[in-house]
Amino acid sequence: MPIAGFRFAAVAAGLKKSGLDVGLAVADAPLTAAGVFTQNLVRAAPVDVAHERLEGGQIQALLVNSGCANACTGEAGLKATQQSTAAVGRALGIEPTLVVPASTGVIGEVLATEKIEAKSAELVQGLAVDGDEGFAEAIMTTDRFVKVASASLPGGASVLGIAKGAGMIHPDMGLALPPHATMLAFLFTDAVADIGTLRGALLVASELTFNVCTVDGDTSTNDCAIALASGASETEVPRKDVTEAFIDVCGKLGRMMVKDGEGASHAVDIIVRGLESSDEARAVAKTIATSALVKTAIFGKDPNWGRILGAAGRAGVTFDPKRARIAVGGVEIVKDGQGLGGEAEKLAKEKMAAEAYTIEVCLGPGPGEFTYITSDLGHGYVDVNAGYRS
Amino acid sequence: MPIAGFRFAAVAAGLKKSGLDVGLAVADAPLTAAGVFTQNLVRAAPVDVAHERLEGGQIQALLVNSGCANACTGEAGLKATQQSTAAVGRALGIEPTLVVPASTGVIGEVLATEKIEAKSAELVQGLAVDGDEGFAEAIMTTDRFVKVASASLPGGASVLGIAKGAGMIHPDMGLALPPHATMLAFLFTDAVADIGTLRGALLVASELTFNVCTVDGDTSTNDCAIALASGASETEVPRKDVTEAFIDVCGKLGRMMVKDGEGASHAVDIIVRGLESSDEARAVAKTIATSALVKTAIFGKDPNWGRILGAAGRAGVTFDPKRARIAVGGVEIVKDGQGLGGEAEKLAKEKMAAEAYTIEVCLGPGPGEFTYITSDLGHGYVDVNAGYRS
Repeated sequence: MPIAGFRFAAVAAGLKKSGLDVGLAVADAPLTAAGVFTQNLVRAAPVDVAHERLEGGQIQALLVNSGCANACTGEAGLKATQQSTAAVGRALGIEPTLVVPASTGVIGEVLATEKIEAKSAELVQGLAVDGDEGFAEAIMTTDRFVKVASASLPGGASVLGIAKGAGMIHPDMGLALPPHATMLAFLFTDAVADIGTLRGALLVASELTFNVCTVDGDTSTNDCAIALASGASETEVPRKDVTEAFIDVCGKLGRMMVKDGEGASHAVDIIVRGLESSDEARAVAKTIATSALVKTAIFGKDPNWGRILGAAGRAGVTFDPKRARIAVGGVEIVKDGQGLGGEAEKLAKEKMAAEAYTIEVCLGPGPGEFTYITSDLGHGYVDVNAGYRS
Repeated sequence: MPIAGFRFAAVAAGLKKSGLDVGLAVADAPLTAAGVFTQNLVRAAPVDVAHERLEGGQIQALLVNSGCANACTGEAGLKATQQSTAAVGRALGIEPTLVVPASTGVIGEVLATEKIEAKSAELVQGLAVDGDEGFAEAIMTTDRFVKVASASLPGGASVLGIAKGAGMIHPDMGLALPPHATMLAFLFTDAVADIGTLRGALLVASELTFNVCTVDGDTSTNDCAIALASGASETEVPRKDVTEAFIDVCGKLGRMMVKDGEGASHAVDIIVRGLESSDEARAVAKTIATSALVKTAIFGKDPNWGRILGAAGRAGVTFDPKRARIAVGGVEIVKDGQGLGGEAEKLAKEKMAAEAYTIEVCLGPGPGEFTYITSDLGHGYVDVNAGYRS
């Protein structure tokens, strides 16, 4: 989907065994941009560089690659990121500091700058308004499908979101700190938005969407989300509307990531209600969503509510187990802390065959509610992750 | 192994599809006993009852069963536990409150009291000084082998430990709160020890051994460890020696549980060093030991240090990643935060074929050190847990 003020390109530079692995997104002029990054202490070179370049709030291009995370690579890694963005900056005829890098792939290998340098001219020549699909493909690693979503803004402007992510998914991103990347998301809008609006909207949207998605509970060394506003629509959009559109787009992208969770076949909304605060509900939802026993039960299509309640009980939150109610796919299987037995569980088991469904856990009369989105843990996950590097 | 002052028995009461499923341990007279219990908020009826009966510090018998956790079973569950312990108390000719229950198995089903009542006489008739193996067998669920360990105390006294546990293993037990059980451990000693000694030694030993073992990061609704001192050796043993012996026995039992981790083939010591305090080291060791990505890499025999460092980085502890050193099976693969490359990794990969090995992570010059013991996450784990109830 073309979005005014941006062009995209992608090439196969040989960083992956095959397929597109370097992408470029370029704005017609320097523009306003904001980023949020993983809060993992161990972060990749491109993250440090992106963080620094985004601090000024003005950039013009995104240079992304898969096949190599360029993480834990020290000075050599830093130099490689600087050189590859400089090469593409030269080919574009812009300052290298206007080029923001993002990398994903195996940790511990230095980015092969020469492969990107060799493709710089081809990359720039290939820039096109409808090149977003190629860009989306170039950031895929273990992803099984391309992740693109969009939303409309008042006044005819719009937002285009492009993301990748399937494993090492449990982002926990903040404005302050750079990441390590296996979740990458880029939001392009043609709205006129200042840096405060972009940063605020991105932070809120990340917190409510990406940060509540979990595949394996592991945050990555390269996680980042970057929002760019070209202003090409000449429509000034209120912060509230930008935030809503970002939540919409990031919500769709996050759900795609969980659905594409490595080896996963289900994306399940864990909805926790009835606690004193949403923070408490979040703690319980997170514990259930990351429980290996719950996730294997989802894989096995087993409405094993004892594991759900057991996970809730170790979340560090106080509630009365005797008031607990649990519904799976809308079918109530636990009431007053006790199982409702065979028939209800049989029905719930049938609901668990669906690709997406809800597990609702009500733990009291309080107003606190929170939803996490999780995937199942099955043989596919083990296969993908036991052999990813080899 | 006989231990003075105790007799054991076990029967097949039909709580499991087959095999021994009810065990009884009886002392010649009321004795001193202490317990630690899971801190999970959701706890089984037998845990509530055991906690209450152990508060006085004097009991005479342990009635244990597998096949049914009797958790989340409300009033009916409580009544079932009271009735079954009363039946066995009658058969023994002792007060029912001297009989402490422990259950393990599926959550959500009420204990079938009548099956235990029907076997009470047989159970009591079968009591023998060498009945400990049967007792150990009767508490097995998904365990692949019986877990028994012992240690000697000064003056000729000794400690016998019997445990079960293979999944839902990540105990977090304290004196104050009752549990939900998938890890059960019983320590029998013929030493003369007062309640303070028993409680202190059990708490320290649990904290240093069971509580640092993890199979899946899930604490159970029934976890408990109970220590009983018959005094039959007439040897008063100093608290320090009792504590050491308990640490020895519990350490062996904990390691057996991880080794027997559902579907697991490796037990790996995650040793974290060089942080400011052992609390910090513990937080990092726990995050690495429970990381799904690290555990699948252990399964895949992949010295994927990026995942180890990535897990360390999200533990909420500050360190300089550029100082990180990692050794697998004694082979250094990361120095100054960077991989040492092919040859070192090849050697490390060979070490990872072993059933047990170490992953050492040094993150700085500090004195803080902590060790967690974890298992691998492979197809066996998924098989066991996707289908456990069916």
